[in-house]
Amino acid sequence: MDMDQRRDKKGIRVGIIGASGYTGGELARILLGHPRVEITCVSSRTYAGQSLGQVFPNLFGLSGPRGEELVCEDLAPIEVAERCDVIFTAVPHGVAMEIARSIMGIIDVKLIDLGADFRFRDAGVYEAWYKKKHEAPRLLAEAVYGLPELHRALIEKARIVGNPGCYPTSAILALAPLIKSGMVDPSSIVINSMSGVSGAGRTPSQGYHFPECNENARPYGIPGHRHTPEIEQELSLLSRTEIRVSFSPHLVPITRGILTTAYATLDPASASDSGAGRVSTDSLIQLYKDFYRGERFIRILDDGRLPQTKAVWGSNFCDIGVRFDERVGRVVVMAAIDNLVKGAAGQAVQNMNIMFGIEEDCGLDRPPVFP
Amino acid sequence: MDMDQRRDKKGIRVGIIGASGYTGGELARILLGHPRVEITCVSSRTYAGQSLGQVFPNLFGLSGPRGEELVCEDLAPIEVAERCDVIFTAVPHGVAMEIARSIMGIIDVKLIDLGADFRFRDAGVYEAWYKKKHEAPRLLAEAVYGLPELHRALIEKARIVGNPGCYPTSAILALAPLIKSGMVDPSSIVINSMSGVSGAGRTPSQGYHFPECNENARPYGIPGHRHTPEIEQELSLLSRTEIRVSFSPHLVPITRGILTTAYATLDPASASDSGAGRVSTDSLIQLYKDFYRGERFIRILDDGRLPQTKAVWGSNFCDIGVRFDERVGRVVVMAAIDNLVKGAAGQAVQNMNIMFGIEEDCGLDRPPVFP
Amino acid sequence: MDMDQRRDKKGIRVGIIGASGYTGGELARILLGHPRVEITCVSSRTYAGQSLGQVFPNLFGLSGPRGEELVCEDLAPIEVAERCDVIFTAVPHGVAMEIARSIMGIIDVKLIDLGADFRFRDAGVYEAWYKKKHEAPRLLAEAVYGLPELHRALIEKARIVGNPGCYPTSAILALAPLIKSGMVDPSSIVINSMSGVSGAGRTPSQGYHFPECNENARPYGIPGHRHTPEIEQELSLLSRTEIRVSFSPHLVPITRGILTTAYATLDPASASDSGAGRVSTDSLIQLYKDFYRGERFIRILDDGRLPQTKAVWGSNFCDIGVRFDERVGRVVVMAAIDNLVKGAAGQAVQNMNIMFGIEEDCGLDRPPVFP
Amino acid sequence: MDMDQRRDKKGIRVGIIGASGYTGGELARILLGHPRVEITCVSSRTYAGQSLGQVFPNLFGLSGPRGEELVCEDLAPIEVAERCDVIFTAVPHGVAMEIARSIMGIIDVKLIDLGADFRFRDAGVYEAWYKKKHEAPRLLAEAVYGLPELHRALIEKARIVGNPGCYPTSAILALAPLIKSGMVDPSSIVINSMSGVSGAGRTPSQGYHFPECNENARPYGIPGHRHTPEIEQELSLLSRTEIRVSFSPHLVPITRGILTTAYATLDPASASDSGAGRVSTDSLIQLYKDFYRGERFIRILDDGRLPQTKAVWGSNFCDIGVRFDERVGRVVVMAAIDNLVKGAAGQAVQNMNIMFGIEEDCGLDRPPVFP
Repeated sequence: MDMDQRRDKKGIRVGIIGASGYTGGELARILLGHPRVEITCVSSRTYAGQSLGQVFPNLFGLSGPRGEELVCEDLAPIEVAERCDVIFTAVPHGVAMEIARSIMGIIDVKLIDLGADFRFRDAGVYEAWYKKKHEAPRLLAEAVYGLPELHRALIEKARIVGNPGCYPTSAILALAPLIKSGMVDPSSIVINSMSGVSGAGRTPSQGYHFPECNENARPYGIPGHRHTPEIEQELSLLSRTEIRVSFSPHLVPITRGILTTAYATLDPASASDSGAGRVSTDSLIQLYKDFYRGERFIRILDDGRLPQTKAVWGSNFCDIGVRFDERVGRVVVMAAIDNLVKGAAGQAVQNMNIMFGIEEDCGLDRPPVFP
Repeated sequence: MDMDQRRDKKGIRVGIIGASGYTGGELARILLGHPRVEITCVSSRTYAGQSLGQVFPNLFGLSGPRGEELVCEDLAPIEVAERCDVIFTAVPHGVAMEIARSIMGIIDVKLIDLGADFRFRDAGVYEAWYKKKHEAPRLLAEAVYGLPELHRALIEKARIVGNPGCYPTSAILALAPLIKSGMVDPSSIVINSMSGVSGAGRTPSQGYHFPECNENARPYGIPGHRHTPEIEQELSLLSRTEIRVSFSPHLVPITRGILTTAYATLDPASASDSGAGRVSTDSLIQLYKDFYRGERFIRILDDGRLPQTKAVWGSNFCDIGVRFDERVGRVVVMAAIDNLVKGAAGQAVQNMNIMFGIEEDCGLDRPPVFP
Repeated sequence: MDMDQRRDKKGIRVGIIGASGYTGGELARILLGHPRVEITCVSSRTYAGQSLGQVFPNLFGLSGPRGEELVCEDLAPIEVAERCDVIFTAVPHGVAMEIARSIMGIIDVKLIDLGADFRFRDAGVYEAWYKKKHEAPRLLAEAVYGLPELHRALIEKARIVGNPGCYPTSAILALAPLIKSGMVDPSSIVINSMSGVSGAGRTPSQGYHFPECNENARPYGIPGHRHTPEIEQELSLLSRTEIRVSFSPHLVPITRGILTTAYATLDPASASDSGAGRVSTDSLIQLYKDFYRGERFIRILDDGRLPQTKAVWGSNFCDIGVRFDERVGRVVVMAAIDNLVKGAAGQAVQNMNIMFGIEEDCGLDRPPVFP
Repeated sequence: MDMDQRRDKKGIRVGIIGASGYTGGELARILLGHPRVEITCVSSRTYAGQSLGQVFPNLFGLSGPRGEELVCEDLAPIEVAERCDVIFTAVPHGVAMEIARSIMGIIDVKLIDLGADFRFRDAGVYEAWYKKKHEAPRLLAEAVYGLPELHRALIEKARIVGNPGCYPTSAILALAPLIKSGMVDPSSIVINSMSGVSGAGRTPSQGYHFPECNENARPYGIPGHRHTPEIEQELSLLSRTEIRVSFSPHLVPITRGILTTAYATLDPASASDSGAGRVSTDSLIQLYKDFYRGERFIRILDDGRLPQTKAVWGSNFCDIGVRFDERVGRVVVMAAIDNLVKGAAGQAVQNMNIMFGIEEDCGLDRPPVFP
């Protein structure tokens, strides 16, 4: 029985492993509103026996696709796989590769991992930054980095997708057109990001305790945040040179949202070589519009507007603004996403839509919520 | 040509008058995601010529139903009416009655007013609290107070609906089962509410300036807030006695959400008369579940959970919790809504759905956003 | 050697037991700026060996009174007492009574407890609400409830002060003049409070995790919060009848601040008996001004202004506003405090000042911080 | 009669011109707690006749130095000057130079301007960035840039001080030791800052309306913010070369605080020339500690801690952390200040203390407020 036969008229059968964190909850929220999907199981050891509505207060009383409440179960990965066409794993680093090893090749199912286990082309990079041996290097080799705007064709055929990190999504989308154009010095890239606190997960700790986050802005993990190598991998692919970046994350007192401000100095050589004339804010905006033409979830802002996290809140959009600072010869690009949607669950659903050949914005087509 | 013929396969043709405030923007957000609706015009004097995406950053680039961007126009009400099956008015008090007078009876269109002009059975009450003569008393007489959980049958046939205020929605839904039961002393009712700042509208002023709202909690308009008579009208109807309440609004530093905590003392007479036995938290929860059985947007919380604004954020739900405080013989009921959805635009769309005989939760069926 | 001899020119020697929570940190902050005080020891088991600046980032690098950094030590209570004229205990309920038993009577030292152990006149009330046997009933009998505006004369001579809870401070100060006047029905009192999250302490948990508190307003502990009996004890003393109240706490997304809104119905009998004429907002404001005349930390707001937590932020003030709602014959009183200052550490320092006969506002005389 | 004779035992006589904004209010808050100062007049056209407590709710009921409430007056500058030893001007750009022209040389008074009129050595820079002719170039020539950590000796003797902007204070203090050391490439400097909303002033507008700021992070004024030339002036002085920087301000939903993250690439030449050995985070921290040795308001954080705005809230501290990112050869420096204190009113008072030869932290010695 092939996958298409298994899929009944209810739609794609979806399982979520690790549904108790914010990423899992956001997957449930989006998928409950997705017209082509049926959530068939939610696996969580911690919350086994509890309904989704007990775990997430917004989902209280919201029925599963057949009218009953979805209840978390403590299932082996293979049990999940048997009930699904696609599995989303929202689990700690290192767990997804174990899950993948135990099901891929044994059962015909697709896997979208929201952690870091399937994001790197080079297992050595994973091992260096995550201090952990990669246990599934062959599966890693076939996995696709799930940034649809760069790798859509590969995602269509992928069995395993490594869903990008939240910061890398914003940083790569912000810089891709610029890097691809070859107009900037690849050694000059500085990426300054700020994130809402939901990016730190649902486990309470003093650093995310309300009284210590509220009315506070602070940097953390500088230098050496684990999202750095993801950004470098993708920018290097685009530039065909090895790129290293400064990446500095900050925590600001919002729940959702990432605002990335990236800087790159114009490469004098490329700039003068260019037959396209002088670089300007207008020419950069045009470059970005051309690069992302047809993309449903990328909005290039015109001059006079700058991205803000609130404009994309609750949605899968990435808003991008770009400016040329002539005084210093530097390009400044700003990108805003909702870290739980385009930075995690929404992008994962976008990847699922692509993998199953349905409309890319299916279930993701509602406007952001403002204010 | 009757209304049903005019309505093409694109669905109900909707116009919004006064689309530049938060209520108008929220109507646009919800209606753009409503599968049975086509927004045919958006009227705004202030923003005439600007696209919705210029007025509301979340709506940037989101197409109208025919692919073009919706642009605000400065239209006479009759021009709006000619293009619509239903008009939503999100305008200052006193303006909607003028609009209604200029179109109702002249053209076959329905009207849902999100202001106070069509909320009162007695024009005198409106005039006393709003310090303004009511210019359309006949239309007022036929208007229905648009709280579907209490007046669904009338709304189905209504031509004009006065959409309830945000505070009254939460307070009336919180107290209706209790008042209807007759078990509490009608003179004992105290309603303490807190609201997010979006309830104050989009016009900047010092009281809503970020640095003065943030990290601040404060009462305002005590006593005498204009939402008081709405609450009293509906509770009096339910109790068949004239009820007067203490209503105290407070501002808290959230954008969306109302949390109402209402108090009522058990009427010793009714309580002892009752054959149903002793009042308890359990018996009250059961009373509420029975009263709201089948209601899609009311969630009665079980003991162990209390309502919170975040659990309904971005949705049309009203979450209700009830407790009996035996030590003092008082019932405490708590209700949470999103003031812009169930407290305004969402409830208006719910009313529209009822008036046009379509599924009541059409366009309103996505889960709340958490966290 | 008596206490006055022991006290050197550096001032009152102060010890803090339990300095790692917000209350302990706030004590340190206030006392470091107090010109008549020397902090001689800070006792904390958890943070032993760490400097105050490691525990509280605001105190980094701020020297102790002799130039060195204050370092937390794990000391027995008697060791603390030997170095101090007064000890502040900011410890879990049940611990302070053990500490008191081990030092009072053995060494000449005063004790100000910021927990509940010494707040109740009746050990049975403590035991009923805190589910714990009181181990020091004799010390409890001599302890004074540390609300200076009501019990200043007793505090002056007290050896042990039970510093009031944060909610009770706001509620009792809000209602005292009204209850004392006898004009309201003692059975009609409803107290609705909202608090900032610092009131829940420094230990992280999901309910106080930033993403779940931010943009959220919610009730909790209804009915039956442990601050209820404190309020009832003090109001009953004022009215000379036994008073029971409804008390409902709520959590709002601010760090500091309590805003209490209290309701009481005019007693028809008392009202008509009164020779003072009709009750009005003006007469109530005058009543409050008279009651609190000369109090440095009580500000009675004139008509046209209402209390707000931001107006008292970081200070020992309690701002009070009062209104008469003639339509329903009910008085509404609103009070704002900073829960960590007037609701905890500031009031404790105020008590210390009184106990040592120095200016009551010494160290507490800086204006609130706004915005 | 010289200034010292005019000063009575009440202390320095201070006037504030423009007391209705946040900077003016913060000056009043700090000066009311300053033991060596008497506020003799507060001038405001808008609020003439209102007491400070009506304009700022925190100051309600707080007496002026002689027991009466301070009342705003609409005074000519010369009238203010007659009553003062020093005037603080917290007025729009362009106004302070007019005030200075009308009093300096006519009356013996000192002037500390919190705006931009006296910050630039070159009137042409002011005119280019503020689009306004400088009307008092001679006074500008004698004015001192009021950053005490760099210009203390000049401030001691200054008659006019141009108090630094909030962003420049954080950026210059963050970069000064690095620039002075000559170890970084002066063309590589990127300054990314985020500010609380109080930095935008007290006048309401949509961009600072609570519902649009809350739960939002956004860049603005990129490129070309007016604080850029101030930063460049001071860094250029330190490096003895002309430095141009990228400076990008962002708005985050906090009331107070600036967090600046600055980037500079190691100059390969200088680095290798240096006899001091390899650059490291430790060597940089030592460099900063040496540079700021003895400074009361600069706290250099040890490795393991990073600056956060909350740690300096309400205080005159600037917390600085520095890291070396060896992978990319770039230094990252982070600085946190309270924009209204060290970034405005507190630094102005620090300057006053220096100008009058009193303790530099007089009135500024209370710890930051946390949490």
